[in-house]
Amino acid sequence: MNDKRSNGGITNGVDDELGVILGLDGGTTSTICVCIPFSGQLADPVPVLARAAAGCSNHNSVGETAARDTLVQVMSEALLKSGSKKSAVRAVCLGVSGVNHPDDQERILNWLRNIFPSHVKLYVQNDAVAALASGTMGKLHGCVLIAGTGTISYGFTEDGREARAAGAGPILGDWGSGYGIAAKALTAVIRAHDGRDSQTMLTDRILQTLGLPSPDELIGWTYADPSWARIAALVPVVVSCAEAGDEIANQILNDAVQELASSVIAVVKRLGMGGQDGNSYFPIVMVGGVLEANKRWDIGKEVINCVLRTYPGATPVRPKVDPAVGAALLAWNYLTKEANGEYHRQP
Amino acid sequence: MNDKRSNGGITNGVDDELGVILGLDGGTTSTICVCIPFSGQLADPVPVLARAAAGCSNHNSVGETAARDTLVQVMSEALLKSGSKKSAVRAVCLGVSGVNHPDDQERILNWLRNIFPSHVKLYVQNDAVAALASGTMGKLHGCVLIAGTGTISYGFTEDGREARAAGAGPILGDWGSGYGIAAKALTAVIRAHDGRDSQTMLTDRILQTLGLPSPDELIGWTYADPSWARIAALVPVVVSCAEAGDEIANQILNDAVQELASSVIAVVKRLGMGGQDGNSYFPIVMVGGVLEANKRWDIGKEVINCVLRTYPGATPVRPKVDPAVGAALLAWNYLTKEANGEYHRQP
Repeated sequence: MNDKRSNGGITNGVDDELGVILGLDGGTTSTICVCIPFSGQLADPVPVLARAAAGCSNHNSVGETAARDTLVQVMSEALLKSGSKKSAVRAVCLGVSGVNHPDDQERILNWLRNIFPSHVKLYVQNDAVAALASGTMGKLHGCVLIAGTGTISYGFTEDGREARAAGAGPILGDWGSGYGIAAKALTAVIRAHDGRDSQTMLTDRILQTLGLPSPDELIGWTYADPSWARIAALVPVVVSCAEAGDEIANQILNDAVQELASSVIAVVKRLGMGGQDGNSYFPIVMVGGVLEANKRWDIGKEVINCVLRTYPGATPVRPKVDPAVGAALLAWNYLTKEANGEYHRQP
Repeated sequence: MNDKRSNGGITNGVDDELGVILGLDGGTTSTICVCIPFSGQLADPVPVLARAAAGCSNHNSVGETAARDTLVQVMSEALLKSGSKKSAVRAVCLGVSGVNHPDDQERILNWLRNIFPSHVKLYVQNDAVAALASGTMGKLHGCVLIAGTGTISYGFTEDGREARAAGAGPILGDWGSGYGIAAKALTAVIRAHDGRDSQTMLTDRILQTLGLPSPDELIGWTYADPSWARIAALVPVVVSCAEAGDEIANQILNDAVQELASSVIAVVKRLGMGGQDGNSYFPIVMVGGVLEANKRWDIGKEVINCVLRTYPGATPVRPKVDPAVGAALLAWNYLTKEANGEYHRQP
């Protein structure tokens, strides 16, 4: 599988003594694994030896077995592509969505322990933690807001306290998520159709996008496959209707902004991250398709404006590396601190 | 299978010449089938020869095959219990939830045609139509509001026009349903827990009801089995918290009242059922656990009060028979009209 590597010395930019780190970002839509070399000093840009991609690894969405198969597949592929042996792996950090509880973490850790030799350091976190690390280059300080298919806000203080808000899934009201925005838009189409609410541009645009002749067909369409990502894929239609002046689409986006800002504010408040006067600096790492600033109606910017009204020290960060690299940097930081005897003060 | 019946004459209250009618109410939680005798004159109370019950027959919830198995099982059982032969069946009326589209209706009719001899009259309707008929003794005039696990409003005019509102399922915003009320209550617990909203009595009461130690466990609980009925079963907890003065629980119920009233008003408006001055009489048949008047916080009464403000002629009807009997009465009416040569003017 790997004839480019010798035993000892440096191959493919990897110091064999120091080995490699696997960082993984497992979301509801896709799973990415990267392999980076471990080294004494973190290079900028971070050298990524290999990257592999697969589908959903959220056990709540696809079940335990399918989630694990996806994780194993994507880690093996990244390692193979990197030209490194399994024995070179020093640490693995998994940032996986659906890790909501210490039990989830423990279950995945137990399973990882059967895959990797005992000297390999293993870290399992919610994917929000990897996303935060992608904006802070591995340092766990500040707040991260993810809004893609789902949404969650997570915060860490420098003295190791943490808090989260939202991220509870569609049943439990993640209305700022891509799924939430699109589900509200679909609901608006139904309500306009049956006379409960005013007409909206969303009707024609959504039916056209889905290739459906009438709002009556929407019920069958949602039941046919209620996958969150399939519904969330309608967000750009909502944004374009809002940009074209549709009042209901604008209301849906404004509500989403309030929801997203309130989950950031809840986390910052609980951790006292704004300091006594509320003006202290802290980064807010912004991640996910809903927050991408490529539209006139910029949801991410509006969320920041909302947060700034309460916490003027909040500083938005758009990560330069992806969350999988964030996960790898997290492992890099843990390993380095451990090497410096700081393990028990890990952030 | 049936040794109590002779050929010819009257047995078990059934005139063998006239035969029997099967009426079926298929909801998301349960499916009921009744067998009534067909006769020239409708008796009061309606003589029910037999009644059989089974689980969910909504194809959107349990899939096509399971839904059909349930329907066959419950019809066979009702017929067997009634002491009637299959050959005595004159008409079958299925009121099934999940019939949202002519295609759904046609699919079930095709399948029924393979089960019953060709002379048997077959009718397939949304379960809301059977529910309306249960309040109007088979006459299709007025409006019905169902609010159980799901919710739908349906209306029929005497000249045969019809309209519906809501009934699109949880993804498409049936917020007045039992599921909708309970999902909002669960969301309120999550929001109070992560600091996005104020504390509510719902937290302790819901956790106690579900036997969970902390709101963190709610995410796992909802993912473990997202069946709508299981979530809707929490409605009494929300009502009791509202009765005890909890502001958030009261807000959730008030919102549900507005949602339910708006779906009735949308139907009545589209059909012009209130007449030119809005004051004409029409019945509103109220069906389902959410509308049951056995609580101090009476959701059904509040909905009626809301509707009366717009349509003073609206007259609430609490059905004396169950929706399965309503389905049978619907078939009884169709058969009678057909016998009188009025088939093509069926309501």
